[in-house]
Amino acid sequence: MRGVALLGCTGSIGRSALAVLNRHRDEFRVVALAAHRNAPELAALCAEHRPELAALVDEECANGTKFDGVQLATGRSALLDAATHPDADIVINAVVGAAGLDATLAALNAGKRLALANKESLVAGGPLVMDALERGGGELVPIDSEHSAILQCLGGLDPASVRRVVLTASGGPFRGWSAAALAAATPQQALQHPTWDMGAKITIDSATLANKALEVIEAHFLFGMPYERIEAVVHPQSVIHSMVETTDGSVLAQLGFPTMELPILYALTWPARRVDDGVRRFDPVAAGPLTFERIDDRRFPMFALGCAAGRTGGTAPAVYNAANEVAVAGFLAGHIPFGGIAETVERVLAQHVALPVDSVETIHAADRAARAAAEEALKASWMS
Amino acid sequence: MRGVALLGCTGSIGRSALAVLNRHRDEFRVVALAAHRNAPELAALCAEHRPELAALVDEECANGTKFDGVQLATGRSALLDAATHPDADIVINAVVGAAGLDATLAALNAGKRLALANKESLVAGGPLVMDALERGGGELVPIDSEHSAILQCLGGLDPASVRRVVLTASGGPFRGWSAAALAAATPQQALQHPTWDMGAKITIDSATLANKALEVIEAHFLFGMPYERIEAVVHPQSVIHSMVETTDGSVLAQLGFPTMELPILYALTWPARRVDDGVRRFDPVAAGPLTFERIDDRRFPMFALGCAAGRTGGTAPAVYNAANEVAVAGFLAGHIPFGGIAETVERVLAQHVALPVDSVETIHAADRAARAAAEEALKASWMS
Repeated sequence: MRGVALLGCTGSIGRSALAVLNRHRDEFRVVALAAHRNAPELAALCAEHRPELAALVDEECANGTKFDGVQLATGRSALLDAATHPDADIVINAVVGAAGLDATLAALNAGKRLALANKESLVAGGPLVMDALERGGGELVPIDSEHSAILQCLGGLDPASVRRVVLTASGGPFRGWSAAALAAATPQQALQHPTWDMGAKITIDSATLANKALEVIEAHFLFGMPYERIEAVVHPQSVIHSMVETTDGSVLAQLGFPTMELPILYALTWPARRVDDGVRRFDPVAAGPLTFERIDDRRFPMFALGCAAGRTGGTAPAVYNAANEVAVAGFLAGHIPFGGIAETVERVLAQHVALPVDSVETIHAADRAARAAAEEALKASWMS
Repeated sequence: MRGVALLGCTGSIGRSALAVLNRHRDEFRVVALAAHRNAPELAALCAEHRPELAALVDEECANGTKFDGVQLATGRSALLDAATHPDADIVINAVVGAAGLDATLAALNAGKRLALANKESLVAGGPLVMDALERGGGELVPIDSEHSAILQCLGGLDPASVRRVVLTASGGPFRGWSAAALAAATPQQALQHPTWDMGAKITIDSATLANKALEVIEAHFLFGMPYERIEAVVHPQSVIHSMVETTDGSVLAQLGFPTMELPILYALTWPARRVDDGVRRFDPVAAGPLTFERIDDRRFPMFALGCAAGRTGGTAPAVYNAANEVAVAGFLAGHIPFGGIAETVERVLAQHVALPVDSVETIHAADRAARAAAEEALKASWMS
């Protein structure tokens, strides 16, 4: 019986994780649940799963909610308490955005298996995360479907046999749109993802292809892969979740119906597998034609911007990510057009001088400065 | 430096194997070359590769051909000499048809690594082959692209994690043809394979889908997989070479440009890999849409007939295979129409009472009886 702490339990990944954990109660037990603001849902999940700890990050949202028989902690320290809970063998970090970094580091420093859905941890703090992994003696298993696919393909391979990894991208809701149509795209349109049912932030990142750039950076750290050996290709059906090419010219791929339940389950059981008839089975005939296209850098500049930030390294990926978070919020609020996301991020990156990632403070400082610069850029374009 | 004996060196697989071996002369050395009848080409290959032994099975074809400096052996025993050559670490069995069984057994009994392109060995003599593998302490690595794909996918998997294997089939040149068009199909049409460049026998087997049934039986023995966990699906592009579904609902697949050089190389190097820039690289965008269809049992009865023979077991697969070899030869010679292949095989199987495979003699007797019955059936339909 392994204890699981679930950070971000009220979000899209959190709900999928609880569905998986419910099917495997004989092996996993929920020991801590953490949420950002949604106290009523957190309380309901606590009533169902009876964890030892409930953590609510925004303490002002707690007022009045009853947590019968479950210890409630609040504030940012509560998130870290959940991430390091003594009864947790596995920590699922499904926090949204750069806010997940501290919990990632805490869990790894405590020697936990970290099932990581919060890719921003690795993007912003890659060197620190890999260092915490090594020093803490824990494990780092990705929940992103692409990285889970790569991990599965790498299973039987000697690292020296790997020529490159190829991440697949759905292309998002705006695949094939003209530049003019893209300029006028609304948040409502951007939130209509063709294949994946996800949270708002990642759905917009999927529309700009920023998500794929974040995943390139994530793959770089997770698999120790140089950027020139990481590629991405548009695959609108989201059936092939990613591929690995070997030095002899073979390609291994992982396929499946697009559901996050599979990478969540695999992160829990890796390198073993558990029988799960609840994951919808893959039927190649029903999957229909599988197609591939090159990424159009011109119409989706966020991809190239993010890859360039990754290659620059140091604090540049953290800045890319922070500026993107602010710009996406601005787009969702109707303050900037769709194209303004890339313009904002490009402007912030152009001003940034990357520093080596030597501490969490360096990252947080770069993150704060990038957010401030992005807000400035946003305000300027909003008022113009 | 590992010694390689190549049986069937003048055929399609043989030529591909020599192309691969030529690129890896630093690791592999050709120590024996065996051919059926083509003495001039065997002599030419001997001049190029300088093996220690040249084996020509049909001794009547040798007359006059010069084998300067290479020892020539003839007759069926020469094939076995090549298969058990003391300097051969690896034996590539690319003999066509049931004639390959004795060499397979000889190589495995001698403890060699057997790189097996001759699927008929496993189809006709599965239990004996697996027994020789165990007793001889050798290795059995498939060269069929489908089974190589499955082997690659199984690399990192616990056998208990495998739910099923899914063989892909190109569907052959007659995919989508009407029953009427199929009835009138000519050998010339059947020999035009859409994706694979192969020998005549296997190309016709691909047109009838007999080849896929033989591969189902091959997979059954090779991977110890019950028939109800082996499926086949038509995939006309021959890019995904086969798939493995795991118990948690994930699917691993091996992809690549359709060339036999890759499975040949992998059979030589398994479980390791060697850098080979000579294998054409896979470009998903260039590969175009990947599609899947169910196999149409009604129009391609050879598939269901073969799978049923596999499930019957004992000598039934050997009889299916032998009757098919005779029927294919009859079709290529213009004696029976395309549909006559399945009719012939069905008639022979209907008469056969399957016996347990307890010895090579049992298999050879079943094989001979099936050939005689098939010739009878052929003659009857030829004269009618």
